[in-house]
Amino acid sequence: MSAQRLLVDVHTHVYLPRYAAFLRTRSSVPRIFTRPSPESGKPEERLLILDDEPSSGRPIGAQYWERDEKLKFMDRHAIDVSVVSSANPWLDFLPASTAHTLATELNTDLETYCSAGPSLSDTLKRLYGFGLLPLVPGATTASLISTVEQIAALPHLKGVIMGTRGLGNGLDDAALEPVWAALEAARLVVFLHPHYGVDKHAWGDKENGHVLPLALGFPFETTIATTRLVLAGVFDRYPGLRVLLAHSGGALPQLSSRLASCVAHDPLVAARLQHDARYYLGKLYFDAVAYGAEELGFVSDAIGRADKYASAGASAAASSAKGTDGTAQKRLGAQRMLFGTDHPFFPPLSESEKWKSVVENLEAIDGVYGWDEADKDAVRGGNAIALFNLGS
Amino acid sequence: MSAQRLLVDVHTHVYLPRYAAFLRTRSSVPRIFTRPSPESGKPEERLLILDDEPSSGRPIGAQYWERDEKLKFMDRHAIDVSVVSSANPWLDFLPASTAHTLATELNTDLETYCSAGPSLSDTLKRLYGFGLLPLVPGATTASLISTVEQIAALPHLKGVIMGTRGLGNGLDDAALEPVWAALEAARLVVFLHPHYGVDKHAWGDKENGHVLPLALGFPFETTIATTRLVLAGVFDRYPGLRVLLAHSGGALPQLSSRLASCVAHDPLVAARLQHDARYYLGKLYFDAVAYGAEELGFVSDAIGRADKYASAGASAAASSAKGTDGTAQKRLGAQRMLFGTDHPFFPPLSESEKWKSVVENLEAIDGVYGWDEADKDAVRGGNAIALFNLGS
Repeated sequence: MSAQRLLVDVHTHVYLPRYAAFLRTRSSVPRIFTRPSPESGKPEERLLILDDEPSSGRPIGAQYWERDEKLKFMDRHAIDVSVVSSANPWLDFLPASTAHTLATELNTDLETYCSAGPSLSDTLKRLYGFGLLPLVPGATTASLISTVEQIAALPHLKGVIMGTRGLGNGLDDAALEPVWAALEAARLVVFLHPHYGVDKHAWGDKENGHVLPLALGFPFETTIATTRLVLAGVFDRYPGLRVLLAHSGGALPQLSSRLASCVAHDPLVAARLQHDARYYLGKLYFDAVAYGAEELGFVSDAIGRADKYASAGASAAASSAKGTDGTAQKRLGAQRMLFGTDHPFFPPLSESEKWKSVVENLEAIDGVYGWDEADKDAVRGGNAIALFNLGS
Repeated sequence: MSAQRLLVDVHTHVYLPRYAAFLRTRSSVPRIFTRPSPESGKPEERLLILDDEPSSGRPIGAQYWERDEKLKFMDRHAIDVSVVSSANPWLDFLPASTAHTLATELNTDLETYCSAGPSLSDTLKRLYGFGLLPLVPGATTASLISTVEQIAALPHLKGVIMGTRGLGNGLDDAALEPVWAALEAARLVVFLHPHYGVDKHAWGDKENGHVLPLALGFPFETTIATTRLVLAGVFDRYPGLRVLLAHSGGALPQLSSRLASCVAHDPLVAARLQHDARYYLGKLYFDAVAYGAEELGFVSDAIGRADKYASAGASAAASSAKGTDGTAQKRLGAQRMLFGTDHPFFPPLSESEKWKSVVENLEAIDGVYGWDEADKDAVRGGNAIALFNLGS
């Protein structure tokens, strides 16, 4: 089996049993509660993770926590390997001491979830994971660093998933500098994932279900957090930090030239950054969870052009995409994009062999104009094998 | 002079003298005030249009209101025709009666601004305009419709510019249905433009000047407003309504497949719409104010693919982009994109012949891979001539 032909899912979530049990004890969001099903009258569990969530949240069941359900889903879609992460809102709502304890326990749980799972070969497991840091207000640097060290020592955990709040002041908080340094040194991938969206008043008062906060709020949040990291110079100071953006970076690629223009017109901000804002997109990784071929092709364009925007001093080794017809640039960008499913969210509306959301993401990769089969294989799995250093 | 080779600016603003004088009388945002320049000590006027605006707002001068300054800017950048619109926040902050009176006066002022300006030929002026509607809480349907009729009767006004608040509940407010009907019947183009962004808490507490609200907040607002129009079925009910989106539609193109996926997973919303969410992008117009060639190319892709997402019944005449290598689809989308500058915003940092922001937008059009010269000419001016029916 060639590593180049594996299908690897880098965006796939779990509520570990310990976490789900904890949510069942809670009386405020996030929580899991039981109610009689409106249809059958039988008790059903519901998950509420957002304030003012419509429709009493969403149904939740074994696919959210049982490893066998994850593997069944993987088998159904021919997914060889999954890099599993806890789902939002992680530990954001907890006091610092509880967050530290629960993070430590959940990291050990996830290591077991992976290590006790099946193998694909002598060197490759089917399950790897992103750990959790106790990123909550009041968390001490010592607590954060010790959790980074814990994760780095767990052989099946390859990174951390995090939201955008940090210690309460966002990810551009200077207090996080030691955390970036530790993550960079440990070679752990940071999977940046949204939860809060933007202020709900933006959605108006029409009955649109989850559509607006999920379709727009989530990617806006990722875009804002990543932009704030760029503007704070985090990627200048930690060039080895590897950040994977959920949902193909949200709106960051499409707004990146506007961002560069706004920075260029604001001398104080511009003076702070080593490069044009577009340069930093070439330092990031993007999942391929955008549901459309044109979107993926464009994201790869925005990555592939990034080196053209290196400042003069840094551009000597750059510009491998120069003088092309557009395809070479797009192919370059494919090296930083990684297949994902967002399982167990976006389940099919009716029982069916395959999930529409997964099929669409696979079709999108296959449909990108300008990617050849090697590029598509890289996005489907090869990039993940390399990024997470799996199987070696 | 062939209409196909004109350079037409569809995104260019003015604070008409009557409006600027009104802002000078105000003591709260939006307002124009005078202070001693920190450098020279001489009095200088500043414009404050956003709450908590950093740096005491921005300097404002003749380029914001004088027609000669607009024409000088046009000449400097070889812009033949400008379709001028009042700048944000328009009349949003006024009581309904004041808004109606001022809208009526400003529409007459703008008609004079255009008609008394120079001509390019016997049939073509150099200046056209977007009028204002008194879209504020408490505005009556009669007041709005009479203003639509006023604008429709003014020969140089070709549309209306509007923000996203409507009567206070957004543009998906059922109370606006008669307004959409009247605008559609009058063949007036709606230029949808942001002002409020999203909740400022999203930007954090770092000193980033105007960068985050302008680079991200503005396009997010446009994206939300347009999505809410789509979800409310406005484009299903008013298929002849022509809406031009500022800043290339913000993040809508990049999030459109995600939007379609979220709608498809929400049966109540999906049942309401005649088509896949992506279909509606093909009914919209997008300015080409995105500062990057890849962005423009992608927007044209998202427009060009739209007909593939027509519901089965409607797709008979569609799919002219089917079976292509990607270029035909991109060329199709070029028919709905229109050059703009955002003048007098984003002025050069130092005195120079040309504005960097304008040069970048022209270079972006020129650099789109897949557009031929005819497509670029269409985006530079031909599309505007056709959309606004100029010179005939």
